[in-house]
Amino acid sequence: MGNLAKPDYATSLFILYKMKKKPTKSTNKLKVRRLGIDTQKEHVAYIRADSHVVISEGFEALARVRIKKGILSIVASLHIVHSNLLSKGEIGLSEIAFSSLNIKNGDMIEIIHLEPLVSLGYIRAKIYGKTVDEKGMNEIVEDVLLGNYSNIHLSSFITAFAGDHMNLNEIISLTRAMIISGDRIKWKQKMVVDKHCIGGLPGNRTTPIIVSIVSALGLTMPKTSSRAITSPAGTADTMEVMAPVNLSMKKIKDVVDKQGGCVVWGSGANLSPADDILIRIERALDLDSEGQLIASVLSKKVAAGSTHLVVDMPVGDTVKLRSIEAANHLKILMEQVGNAVGLKLKVVVTDGSQPVGIGLGPSLEAMDILSVLRNEKNAPADLRERSLLLTGELLELAGFVKSGKGYETAAKVLSSGDAYKKFRAICKAQGGYTEPEFAKYRHDIHANHSGIVRSIDNRKISRVAKLAGAPDHPRAGVRYFAPLGKAVKKGDLLYTIFTETEGELYYALQYVKIESDIILIK
Amino acid sequence: MGNLAKPDYATSLFILYKMKKKPTKSTNKLKVRRLGIDTQKEHVAYIRADSHVVISEGFEALARVRIKKGILSIVASLHIVHSNLLSKGEIGLSEIAFSSLNIKNGDMIEIIHLEPLVSLGYIRAKIYGKTVDEKGMNEIVEDVLLGNYSNIHLSSFITAFAGDHMNLNEIISLTRAMIISGDRIKWKQKMVVDKHCIGGLPGNRTTPIIVSIVSALGLTMPKTSSRAITSPAGTADTMEVMAPVNLSMKKIKDVVDKQGGCVVWGSGANLSPADDILIRIERALDLDSEGQLIASVLSKKVAAGSTHLVVDMPVGDTVKLRSIEAANHLKILMEQVGNAVGLKLKVVVTDGSQPVGIGLGPSLEAMDILSVLRNEKNAPADLRERSLLLTGELLELAGFVKSGKGYETAAKVLSSGDAYKKFRAICKAQGGYTEPEFAKYRHDIHANHSGIVRSIDNRKISRVAKLAGAPDHPRAGVRYFAPLGKAVKKGDLLYTIFTETEGELYYALQYVKIESDIILIK
Repeated sequence: MGNLAKPDYATSLFILYKMKKKPTKSTNKLKVRRLGIDTQKEHVAYIRADSHVVISEGFEALARVRIKKGILSIVASLHIVHSNLLSKGEIGLSEIAFSSLNIKNGDMIEIIHLEPLVSLGYIRAKIYGKTVDEKGMNEIVEDVLLGNYSNIHLSSFITAFAGDHMNLNEIISLTRAMIISGDRIKWKQKMVVDKHCIGGLPGNRTTPIIVSIVSALGLTMPKTSSRAITSPAGTADTMEVMAPVNLSMKKIKDVVDKQGGCVVWGSGANLSPADDILIRIERALDLDSEGQLIASVLSKKVAAGSTHLVVDMPVGDTVKLRSIEAANHLKILMEQVGNAVGLKLKVVVTDGSQPVGIGLGPSLEAMDILSVLRNEKNAPADLRERSLLLTGELLELAGFVKSGKGYETAAKVLSSGDAYKKFRAICKAQGGYTEPEFAKYRHDIHANHSGIVRSIDNRKISRVAKLAGAPDHPRAGVRYFAPLGKAVKKGDLLYTIFTETEGELYYALQYVKIESDIILIK
Repeated sequence: MGNLAKPDYATSLFILYKMKKKPTKSTNKLKVRRLGIDTQKEHVAYIRADSHVVISEGFEALARVRIKKGILSIVASLHIVHSNLLSKGEIGLSEIAFSSLNIKNGDMIEIIHLEPLVSLGYIRAKIYGKTVDEKGMNEIVEDVLLGNYSNIHLSSFITAFAGDHMNLNEIISLTRAMIISGDRIKWKQKMVVDKHCIGGLPGNRTTPIIVSIVSALGLTMPKTSSRAITSPAGTADTMEVMAPVNLSMKKIKDVVDKQGGCVVWGSGANLSPADDILIRIERALDLDSEGQLIASVLSKKVAAGSTHLVVDMPVGDTVKLRSIEAANHLKILMEQVGNAVGLKLKVVVTDGSQPVGIGLGPSLEAMDILSVLRNEKNAPADLRERSLLLTGELLELAGFVKSGKGYETAAKVLSSGDAYKKFRAICKAQGGYTEPEFAKYRHDIHANHSGIVRSIDNRKISRVAKLAGAPDHPRAGVRYFAPLGKAVKKGDLLYTIFTETEGELYYALQYVKIESDIILIK
């Protein structure tokens, strides 16, 4: 092949066309119509197939377009309408697009082709085995935050960096980029302690106990917690049974100034908002990623103003981390990233082989917490032990006590009743204390043969509590009386299901009937 | 921590609840309303936030749901409506969902939670470094085909298997799964030859010439071609200038029975439909994958009934394949996969450093083809040479001539005029021949300094042709007269832009003004 000569015969045939003026470009303006369609975080624009803009710009269904209103602009996916849902000169917008552009019905907006997304090049490079530097990661996170990525792009980003595909520097870059993507809370107090659990262990509700002890000792622990996503109760759901948790930032600061601690729902603050966008995609893919997990947790902690953090990392067959090796790997990586972003961080690997405490579900877990704080004779010993262990580590990490003295210091405050007094004071400051209650219906599940309890499936027992109505019905859930190693006789009580409706009890029992291996006795 | 005993105090408090009957579950039936919204291949269902189904089932926006009508069912993404777009008992469906379910306005359909997608587990395993076997790949492709994957899942699949992440067995499995995902064309003729170009080289329109030569020799070459996706012309667009290409399968078989060959648009056949779904996502990500490329090409060829295939693989700085090494790697892999799926396959690596022929755009490329077939003195030598080379390889691969005799056999048929006669006969059989024409407006681009043509950007010169209106305006495009190595003087003609409107000429010239490096002269 090569450089073959081309004939030059055509020149003389051509008439030189001289251009006189810039041709009038049909305007790309359309009138906004609110259609009231909720597409969550995804900007969607609806436009008629026979609209002048579609014809002149050649837009196709699902094209990514930029929509401008003055200086504000968003990127949206186009859905093409072939009916009278809209008139020709109108553009429909999904709820999130409508609010992002801060517009009203009848406003005129402009729609143009989307410029190429440069940051996608970093994702492609990653797929081809290269690493991404801090600049690249910042550009990716910025595009994520601005809504420039469609779900297709977001999923590709998550997948390319999933599993163990990220190295230490990439995780640090991602964490930093996520921190600067949102707001940061500033506290008057110089030292702000915090605690986090790498999820998956039902009933592991140590937070209100830890907050009560460390606040009673004069430390600052403004705990913003989440609601349940896939579990029967989040810390915020459980705390809400006993006190209001939906507080303004001003109110939270008041509570913390007066009491040293709080346990509130962290919804209001705009902390690491890029993470919220990514988590939605991770959940749809049901895909774990150690790098994204670390960046997600630590970016939120730094943005929340924490300086000292203890991480509870349960290990067991039916929790997120299945082996001590996996936990230790994650522990080292997490501590390295924590240091790099200025957090004093200690990871504590704990037992995750069975639920903690007796209750599963907001109200039932609240009862366990109160039982521990009140030093009741029957209080769940495992919940008490875990809380003291983690509090001790936190006190030592904060330099509040000498190494080795954390546990006993914590135990003294709990046993004295000072922690319970502090808890009640916090509840009062958050808006008033309420005593938790049981749900209307209850049904006992008995052992159908004798033996030793050999294993408990954390996920399945959680599922029973969820089918029973937790967390939407806070008093619903499961109370669990057959810990690992217990010798049971046929007919012994294993657990009790609590529900507010007959229907939910039916669903929970149907599930119990099908799943024979929730508890293994032999 | 460990196996801490749990107190057993609660049993006596509980009243055993006896269930009397299965609770009445609110029905999940809704009345269909066609909203006329085009979401391409993605099934979308619209449902009101205050609909009984949303409330009882707890559906959230973007939830994946199964929609059933009798025995037919599809998976759809839910968009929640907060306005009077729909009434409470109605469900809106996007156009594709509407047609997939084969329903009409007012039909009642059922909406239920989606069962977990087992095949996602294979994608997760791949992300964690495992390989996927044939069973796994079949399950993935089946879910893709059934529309069970959302764009998020599709993107994760594409990304996890992109770049060079697939091994030989995985590519073979994917190719086989794609073949069985759709229809297969059966020909009377035992041997069916074919040719494919791994895209990216403008003007490389050898297909009609190759079809004419091999058909004239009595071989069978029923060529189903594509339209342009990102280029100024696809083979189908170019052929359509000279003859109808939108033929029924019955008509295609008639043409092939009579003439031995055809050049038609391959839109009607349902060949490798899973590939069509995946390609849409690959394009959105602008992500190459050698495995997916091979599976895409070869699955369509096998499904189209081809037995012998020559692949043209151009290499150059501004085409898909940038280096001989990359091309050779792909060549070996492609030939191995071809053999595994029963194709006789030969890959020919060719020069891709500059456009082939003179014309870019359907009509202008058709002129080049005719010029070669008519043995005109000024016919583009490179297009002629490439066509003869590939035809020769195909004749040898098919065992029609001895090794080394392919080129001269092809050249004889072309020079004799038999190939042109066959081409006209094929055009006539397809519905009648038309002579290609130039567009209304033309504008010459001249060299602004003297020197040697050192490089040509294939992508940018294609972009000029597209801005000029190709392929939508078939007579629009570029004629190009400055091949690599040519000595040009200031003011010499480099290329001519053809357009049907002043506006398009303006856009093309604006682009030429901005992009100074379309042709490098020094």
